[in-house]
Amino acid sequence: MALVGIVMGSDSDMPVMAKAADILEKFGISYEMTIISAHREPDVFFDYAKTAEEKGFKVIIAGAGMAAHLPGMCAAIFPMPVIGIPMHTTSLGGRDSLYSIVQMPSGIPVATVAINGGANAGILAAKILATSDSQLLSKLKDYTKEMKEGVQAKDAKLQEVGYKNYTK
Amino acid sequence: MALVGIVMGSDSDMPVMAKAADILEKFGISYEMTIISAHREPDVFFDYAKTAEEKGFKVIIAGAGMAAHLPGMCAAIFPMPVIGIPMHTTSLGGRDSLYSIVQMPSGIPVATVAINGGANAGILAAKILATSDSQLLSKLKDYTKEMKEGVQAKDAKLQEVGYKNYTK
Amino acid sequence: MALVGIVMGSDSDMPVMAKAADILEKFGISYEMTIISAHREPDVFFDYAKTAEEKGFKVIIAGAGMAAHLPGMCAAIFPMPVIGIPMHTTSLGGRDSLYSIVQMPSGIPVATVAINGGANAGILAAKILATSDSQLLSKLKDYTKEMKEGVQAKDAKLQEVGYKNYTK
Amino acid sequence: MALVGIVMGSDSDMPVMAKAADILEKFGISYEMTIISAHREPDVFFDYAKTAEEKGFKVIIAGAGMAAHLPGMCAAIFPMPVIGIPMHTTSLGGRDSLYSIVQMPSGIPVATVAINGGANAGILAAKILATSDSQLLSKLKDYTKEMKEGVQAKDAKLQEVGYKNYTK
Amino acid sequence: MALVGIVMGSDSDMPVMAKAADILEKFGISYEMTIISAHREPDVFFDYAKTAEEKGFKVIIAGAGMAAHLPGMCAAIFPMPVIGIPMHTTSLGGRDSLYSIVQMPSGIPVATVAINGGANAGILAAKILATSDSQLLSKLKDYTKEMKEGVQAKDAKLQEVGYKNYTK
Amino acid sequence: MALVGIVMGSDSDMPVMAKAADILEKFGISYEMTIISAHREPDVFFDYAKTAEEKGFKVIIAGAGMAAHLPGMCAAIFPMPVIGIPMHTTSLGGRDSLYSIVQMPSGIPVATVAINGGANAGILAAKILATSDSQLLSKLKDYTKEMKEGVQAKDAKLQEVGYKNYTK
Amino acid sequence: MALVGIVMGSDSDMPVMAKAADILEKFGISYEMTIISAHREPDVFFDYAKTAEEKGFKVIIAGAGMAAHLPGMCAAIFPMPVIGIPMHTTSLGGRDSLYSIVQMPSGIPVATVAINGGANAGILAAKILATSDSQLLSKLKDYTKEMKEGVQAKDAKLQEVGYKNYTK
Amino acid sequence: MALVGIVMGSDSDMPVMAKAADILEKFGISYEMTIISAHREPDVFFDYAKTAEEKGFKVIIAGAGMAAHLPGMCAAIFPMPVIGIPMHTTSLGGRDSLYSIVQMPSGIPVATVAINGGANAGILAAKILATSDSQLLSKLKDYTKEMKEGVQAKDAKLQEVGYKNYTK
Repeated sequence: MALVGIVMGSDSDMPVMAKAADILEKFGISYEMTIISAHREPDVFFDYAKTAEEKGFKVIIAGAGMAAHLPGMCAAIFPMPVIGIPMHTTSLGGRDSLYSIVQMPSGIPVATVAINGGANAGILAAKILATSDSQLLSKLKDYTKEMKEGVQAKDAKLQEVGYKNYTK
Repeated sequence: MALVGIVMGSDSDMPVMAKAADILEKFGISYEMTIISAHREPDVFFDYAKTAEEKGFKVIIAGAGMAAHLPGMCAAIFPMPVIGIPMHTTSLGGRDSLYSIVQMPSGIPVATVAINGGANAGILAAKILATSDSQLLSKLKDYTKEMKEGVQAKDAKLQEVGYKNYTK
Repeated sequence: MALVGIVMGSDSDMPVMAKAADILEKFGISYEMTIISAHREPDVFFDYAKTAEEKGFKVIIAGAGMAAHLPGMCAAIFPMPVIGIPMHTTSLGGRDSLYSIVQMPSGIPVATVAINGGANAGILAAKILATSDSQLLSKLKDYTKEMKEGVQAKDAKLQEVGYKNYTK
Repeated sequence: MALVGIVMGSDSDMPVMAKAADILEKFGISYEMTIISAHREPDVFFDYAKTAEEKGFKVIIAGAGMAAHLPGMCAAIFPMPVIGIPMHTTSLGGRDSLYSIVQMPSGIPVATVAINGGANAGILAAKILATSDSQLLSKLKDYTKEMKEGVQAKDAKLQEVGYKNYTK
Repeated sequence: MALVGIVMGSDSDMPVMAKAADILEKFGISYEMTIISAHREPDVFFDYAKTAEEKGFKVIIAGAGMAAHLPGMCAAIFPMPVIGIPMHTTSLGGRDSLYSIVQMPSGIPVATVAINGGANAGILAAKILATSDSQLLSKLKDYTKEMKEGVQAKDAKLQEVGYKNYTK
Repeated sequence: MALVGIVMGSDSDMPVMAKAADILEKFGISYEMTIISAHREPDVFFDYAKTAEEKGFKVIIAGAGMAAHLPGMCAAIFPMPVIGIPMHTTSLGGRDSLYSIVQMPSGIPVATVAINGGANAGILAAKILATSDSQLLSKLKDYTKEMKEGVQAKDAKLQEVGYKNYTK
Repeated sequence: MALVGIVMGSDSDMPVMAKAADILEKFGISYEMTIISAHREPDVFFDYAKTAEEKGFKVIIAGAGMAAHLPGMCAAIFPMPVIGIPMHTTSLGGRDSLYSIVQMPSGIPVATVAINGGANAGILAAKILATSDSQLLSKLKDYTKEMKEGVQAKDAKLQEVGYKNYTK
Repeated sequence: MALVGIVMGSDSDMPVMAKAADILEKFGISYEMTIISAHREPDVFFDYAKTAEEKGFKVIIAGAGMAAHLPGMCAAIFPMPVIGIPMHTTSLGGRDSLYSIVQMPSGIPVATVAINGGANAGILAAKILATSDSQLLSKLKDYTKEMKEGVQAKDAKLQEVGYKNYTK
């Protein structure tokens, strides 16, 4: 049984969704990744959303672009948190995806992350699960340390080589 | 049996949707108006969209605001034209509704009209039905004449009273 | 006699308009494709729009970019549905085309599809004609099945190879 | 014979268009104001645009809102300058009108002024006519002086009463 | 000990934040509401964010407008989920708040809800806590039923009185 | 003595401004092209704008990008028409240039053309001069015919080769 | 001799500019407030900007709306910091003013504050002068304390009366 | 002791921040460049901002992208001017960065420059320091002359070779 469902409407979203999966793997969180289109196979989608709870999902991460309905429709059916990832789009830069995901009506929230924010969706899922899993919470704190050390290493390099040599 | 289904997600959309119904009444086109939320009652919505064809609908007019999923989800299920009306919104002026309705992925078009374009949705439904109903086509041509005469009457008034007295 | 007129203001719109024609060919719908500029040859355009009905057109698909007047001017003259395709533009991403097409005044609707939504314009034309053509309606339902199977095939591949190998 | 044609698609544009007429009256420039909708009466519009030159018009001032086609269609037919006034709109603040007017394709310019810029359209028309009318040019220079004196009077008041009393 | 911290940068955000508190009260979830400005009292803010975990918070709901830093800075310090509510703003309609909250860099997600989406922030907090609280999950399902019945009641009224009398 | 001044703030604007000059050459209109920055050499700029009339300019074409002040500052000083060309910009697509040029306050119009609309600026200058030059007006009508024939040639090709071969 | 020049293009900007003056008065910083339009009286403006240094100004605060050229033109002439305040505008919400002020070309910065940010312009001027005035720096630190206490007082009230009574 | 602190949240901002440093070097202004993330290491950041004054900084230049909190958080703690550089972003073109930096609440200004305006941030820092350093003020005036000569050289080349050969 997986704790997190990752779902995308099109395989063109894969590079972004893969970052969410990478994070879940890093934290040892079980997940199930699926391609389901709410528009092209609404019955398959409905079945997916309705059975998500019984499959053991605690969180769904849904990515979609343009008139991005998948996250909001998941949130209409699945009773626990749905995290929405708005995809970057060529013409509108992802504003269309963002508005379609974040501007949900009262009663049906989608926890929206940044445009193309695959990694952040994974981390948010982990933070949600960490509200009742102290071991996972520890891992998240370690991850925070890692990030800090990553920035510090970059600064140390800057102090050593100077900005003119930094990007050489 | 009604030819047109008019559906809105919230009764706050009523003033705009009423204009669509007014047009259908004017043209003598049968319709059925319903309030159904794809987000708050997805099963009711699915049932509505799936039975729309057998109820005799040839066109659905769906209005929605913000992350406006209703028209797109109708178009995912109903095999004939879905006309989408993006509602004006306080914060984003209806850009959110417009993008959520018009930016549909390939395969699932929604025939989108202007923000708050209730009357135009009704007229578009009439134009669609007129592709196989010459009597309705005649009525549409009469309506065009009416509009022309309406503008001409305004211009006649302007020529008579002058612009300084026009709006008094 | 063709059922659908496809018209574009510039041959730079051809790649997008071709997708509409591809769909019509797939569904066996007769069409006539023309390049006519409402701005550069208004008299040619007027003649086109005025004779469209007698040529047998039931639907016009018009594509245009920037201050995209072609679809709206068609809709002002042709009494049946006009489908507008807003072209992507370099500077404003197609917002200019979209607003110029969708924000039509009351009385003159244009059935607007997504920016660069050539295929969807073709499908919407088919859906309109299917309101009085049950055979075409059947084909549209088959197309829906095809789309569903396409997504399912992608998901099956994902389940088989895993996300890390999916895009390799 | 009038030198300037003022045309609007709807009488709701009157308050803005009146400011253009006020300026023309101030400068003693003959004009003819008309309400003509390119969308609701395309044949009337075409006739207007085609006969504009023989009526003696040197400049057309056209105002329109939303999918504002009137100025661009005038520019497609009338061989001398067309000045476009984008109307403010409730939902998109006039961006729709602005883009529909200013983003004209190569070959068909519209001299666009600010959203709701009625007075500026009048002044621009005067500046255009002043290229061959030295008396009008003098009047324009006087107007510039007036504007300067207007600002100076306001500054003098500020220096006298101080900012705390200025708006009382 | 409260499970949810509600924090806002200015008391002008109170009407929106109150809706989040109302929802938490409805679901019987303990919370603590505070006014703290990350900009005007950064040390107070830092202390708040650092001690949030030991105070027992599992979720923080942070609302802010304009250059809305409060939610993101909470997310930088608090290891569990932070829900961000972008406030509507007069000049930019809340786009500024939305972008400042949702566009977080990789590693530091904020679960963003709609502009002025106070109620949805409360519901999202409940959904997060429901991942480990089956009783709360039941309440959420009841709430979903309530929403459904609310829409159905409106539709029943529409069917009874007709659209022309609906808003009277 | 030149009739038209072409001025740009930076030589990066040259490719767009060159199109305006090309048009003027085509119509045999004398012009003078200059690089002057209102920001980097305000005194040179002021001198340019103040002496423009005595140099014989009837129209100034000014191009600028970003916070594009050059056209508006020309219009503040030069008493005849100033045509503004908003340059495309990487970050904001030219919206910054467009708003800085078109949104002039009452009293100081700039005749704004499309983003990167160099050719249209040239044509607009010609149309302005044609208000008092019937020979130039004839040339403009010929140009209109040329444009028409250009579109007709493209359509003829389309009818001959079909859309599938058109772009090969 | 005043240290700060406050200048606005129109007295409609007074309510916003007054907030900048209020702050300067609070900190005991001498200033001179003027209404000067770069567009309507360019020679007066040039004289103002050129003599600003000899009048003793160390900072200029310039407010303007729409195609807001005043701050940028000040920055082109005055060698010390120019602070720009973009005015809110009806149609574009102040985006036009903001872009016209902040998007200055390389070499000519304007220190831009928020739309309608009069008070912040005053504070920024004080911060600039405080780089060489330790007494003023002390006052700024006191002001920071005041702001902190203001927020704390609001929070104390909230803790006392609860959110339901807070806004009563 | 350095007079200016240059700080960025990510080394991807280096190319833009380097331009600020280049300017400071050109003017002989001491600076210290650091990579510090307010999000990934809030405690390091707080320490940096709190000790900035005692390190001798008179100005901080902070660059950040997306939900760009770094400049605003610096301004919340450092009592002298903070200059913010909004980074260009792929999806929103830097609007997100710009709004997150410029739209600061009353009391906490950030002196915002153009998107990617690294050089202008350096020049603005110099202008601020020049309010109490007449030698630096002289250098700034020399720089202004250099810029003027740069434009004049380009114009001279244009006059010599003509526009058709200019870019060859």
